[in-house]
Amino acid sequence: MPHALRNRWAAACLAVSALCVIGVSAQTSPGSVARQWRMQHERAILDEFTAFLSLPNVTSDRNGIARNAAALAEMMGRRGMTPQLLSVPGSNPVVFGELTTGATTTIVFYAHYDGQPVEPKEWAAPPFSPALRSRAVDQGGQAVTPALAGQALDPETRIYARSAADDKGQILALLTALDALKAAGLPLRANLKFVFDGEEEAGSPNLERIIVANRHLLSGTVWLICDGSQYPGNRPVVTFGARGFVGADITVYGARRELHSGNFGNWAPNPALALARLLASLKDDNGRILINGFYDGIVPLTAAEQQALRDVPPTERELMHDLLLGASEGAPATLNERLALPSINIRGLASARVGAQAASIIPSTATASIDMRLVKGMDHRQTARQLIDHARRQSFFIVDGEPAADVLRTHPRVARISFGTGGNAFRTSMQLPVAQAVIRAIEDTRGPVIKLPTMGGSLPVAFIESTLSTHLINIHMSNPDSNNHSSNENLRLQNLWDGIEQAAGLLLLDVRP
Amino acid sequence: MPHALRNRWAAACLAVSALCVIGVSAQTSPGSVARQWRMQHERAILDEFTAFLSLPNVTSDRNGIARNAAALAEMMGRRGMTPQLLSVPGSNPVVFGELTTGATTTIVFYAHYDGQPVEPKEWAAPPFSPALRSRAVDQGGQAVTPALAGQALDPETRIYARSAADDKGQILALLTALDALKAAGLPLRANLKFVFDGEEEAGSPNLERIIVANRHLLSGTVWLICDGSQYPGNRPVVTFGARGFVGADITVYGARRELHSGNFGNWAPNPALALARLLASLKDDNGRILINGFYDGIVPLTAAEQQALRDVPPTERELMHDLLLGASEGAPATLNERLALPSINIRGLASARVGAQAASIIPSTATASIDMRLVKGMDHRQTARQLIDHARRQSFFIVDGEPAADVLRTHPRVARISFGTGGNAFRTSMQLPVAQAVIRAIEDTRGPVIKLPTMGGSLPVAFIESTLSTHLINIHMSNPDSNNHSSNENLRLQNLWDGIEQAAGLLLLDVRP
Repeated sequence: MPHALRNRWAAACLAVSALCVIGVSAQTSPGSVARQWRMQHERAILDEFTAFLSLPNVTSDRNGIARNAAALAEMMGRRGMTPQLLSVPGSNPVVFGELTTGATTTIVFYAHYDGQPVEPKEWAAPPFSPALRSRAVDQGGQAVTPALAGQALDPETRIYARSAADDKGQILALLTALDALKAAGLPLRANLKFVFDGEEEAGSPNLERIIVANRHLLSGTVWLICDGSQYPGNRPVVTFGARGFVGADITVYGARRELHSGNFGNWAPNPALALARLLASLKDDNGRILINGFYDGIVPLTAAEQQALRDVPPTERELMHDLLLGASEGAPATLNERLALPSINIRGLASARVGAQAASIIPSTATASIDMRLVKGMDHRQTARQLIDHARRQSFFIVDGEPAADVLRTHPRVARISFGTGGNAFRTSMQLPVAQAVIRAIEDTRGPVIKLPTMGGSLPVAFIESTLSTHLINIHMSNPDSNNHSSNENLRLQNLWDGIEQAAGLLLLDVRP
Repeated sequence: MPHALRNRWAAACLAVSALCVIGVSAQTSPGSVARQWRMQHERAILDEFTAFLSLPNVTSDRNGIARNAAALAEMMGRRGMTPQLLSVPGSNPVVFGELTTGATTTIVFYAHYDGQPVEPKEWAAPPFSPALRSRAVDQGGQAVTPALAGQALDPETRIYARSAADDKGQILALLTALDALKAAGLPLRANLKFVFDGEEEAGSPNLERIIVANRHLLSGTVWLICDGSQYPGNRPVVTFGARGFVGADITVYGARRELHSGNFGNWAPNPALALARLLASLKDDNGRILINGFYDGIVPLTAAEQQALRDVPPTERELMHDLLLGASEGAPATLNERLALPSINIRGLASARVGAQAASIIPSTATASIDMRLVKGMDHRQTARQLIDHARRQSFFIVDGEPAADVLRTHPRVARISFGTGGNAFRTSMQLPVAQAVIRAIEDTRGPVIKLPTMGGSLPVAFIESTLSTHLINIHMSNPDSNNHSSNENLRLQNLWDGIEQAAGLLLLDVRP
């Protein structure tokens, strides 16, 4: 939001708040109801948040996850739900709860309560001892004592803890907004379901099985995927899709051992050169991917989606300055135009040694790690096959495990390609009534919002669209500098306050099936 | 040497030895004189060798090097020389000695007494505690007690120690051959000079300055570079050249920090891809180097050199089987045909992480380490410039240090190229009288010898040819499986015995200026 607009918006909100205080809340919007409640209960909200954040929740920590699930169920119970823990063998539980109204529409709120691994020594304070700071720790933020009752906190204050931003904050915003609506006596308009995943940070390996096993319980008119951060500059954004994902390691084989580059150089094939050739063959100079069939079946952006991309405030110039980039790939296309296309990216390279450790040898192997981001209409299994076919056309013999001696002796070029877990993209039409309702609900509480047809990143939830015949829309809340996935993860209080208002609007989403 | 021929050769030698015993040594060849002496003094020869090998001689160990230089000077003094230590500030000393005859020709023997670094824990026994084993340690060789006086050792016995093969063995062979010639009363035919380098394993960074400062002292009709191993199968070989060398690290720059590949992939340039493209542009599919002007000025092989290459016994099929190679570069060219051409080789690649450590990011930098091997007629400084020009034609802006922010912001592609110490090739004509004399001297003692116009490897001595207006020829001795530069370095006794005979022939080289 531009600065001038933010000030106007703040002024308007203050006016609304004043109205609330004098008792006309029944006529006010869900957002202003939520604001009023929040302003009166900041300390209690933060106390509940702090208690929740104090529970270690790294995905692989089964005991910690169990304590989180129990606490979360209790928090939902306090809001009138009868939560269930949904599991399959070996999974962390999905914590599920619902509020039924008898309406024909159902809104499903998805978020996750697990968190990324932590390296405590890289944190300014322990990751599961939530602490307030006056601003970002890398901008000199100082420790802040929680406000006394009735004393408002500076909204630039940040709360530091693992999962503050990703993604317990969104859970807290939803539950707090429920409190506000109930206190104000605003009736629900749809059935509400809450699906809180406990394995998102591990790629939700069991979510599909859990959803299939509970298909009826989890069905809904729309799934709102509550995760992720606002647009650069902390501008409100809603995204209607995510790219799919294929990750792979490619290893090219040379001689069984490193060879002296003087005694064998020019004669024994160099696997690093063969790998470089293969990688160079993947993309042309303009960033177009050269894998046969890669773009086949892609669902093009609609006119509305193209228009939405044109409406996105440009960030490229600032980003390039900050990142020290002298060019962008596929220019003059904008960042978000490029993110709406499928991509292929080299994540890393490794072969023998470089720099002071380099020896004058021909490496025995060379490995590249790559990821591919897919868009709607592509299938991750087919993309993986296309990559293999491409390498074959570059005259590689492809294996999926360590190649046997005979294979190496009888093929001029051998590469191993190993794939990780893949997933497809989704992209919900912004023109669906439910999408328009979401935009309206957010704009009613937050003002003008940036609408992106897709995120560049990936979410392990695309299958839900077809499995449950529903629609997926991503709801963002945290500050872009929240350090999610990293050390010193934090949530800016104003983002939490705004998130509570946004949640109130979405809980009362006016949607017809 | 083929097995049948080796047996005939051995039988002939036994006959000659029998003649020596009955007192006709003055009529016998230097080789048989040396053999006779060796057979009578095996224990003493090994004792002197063992004492020399017991002195730690890693190039960077200044105290160890000083002890080696002193011991070597004493060994030379025992042979009637008055050795000098030649240094420039900061250098290890060259140990120099001569035996003058008043002849108009001078033969200079170059070898080095320093050794590669050691990692004692990777050795079967301490690297500076020389030990005999019945055969190679990786073929089950067992410890052998030194022979009692008069009891011949199995010639398959190996002596394990750092520098046994590379290169103290050649020094010992020369000094022992001097003893044998003196004992037999064979007169020298030329002035002999001995130049023992103490920094070869560090690339002889000071040798040129030392030689320039002692130009008159070190001049000679021919320099025999005594280093390196016999041909695969332990067949005797003499080589008339070495390739030049240019080493470089190339780092391509992306954004100042790693970027999320979902949020920026397809837009922020990927330095690993740019590097792959640059590397792929260096060579075509047939192994021909595509750098402009790279092959300019190369002195082609003469008819005699081409014939010599055709005479080399083929090893390719066996090598490919052993190394698990399904193809060779530039086929159907042979290994030695390829080694007579300049090469470019990727020594290593590094960019972010691969495998289980890979993160879905765009790397910030990508680095390749490369080496180029040059042939006669190329200049290493010009080749380095050509590499830079090539990268510029691939639209890179080239820097030689860490690029400033402004440089990165204003150039679409920035690469840093850092060069190490370079050197030129040399290739002495096999048809020079001195070359023919060397071939004759070795064949008179060892039988048919493989003649290679050049080694594939590099030697930091090419400048000597022009600095001293002389000729360089490489004399080999050690077993190819000597593990030089590695752990468990060893010298097969038969190679030492043969080397003493070969040295005797070379000390009496019949050469006219």
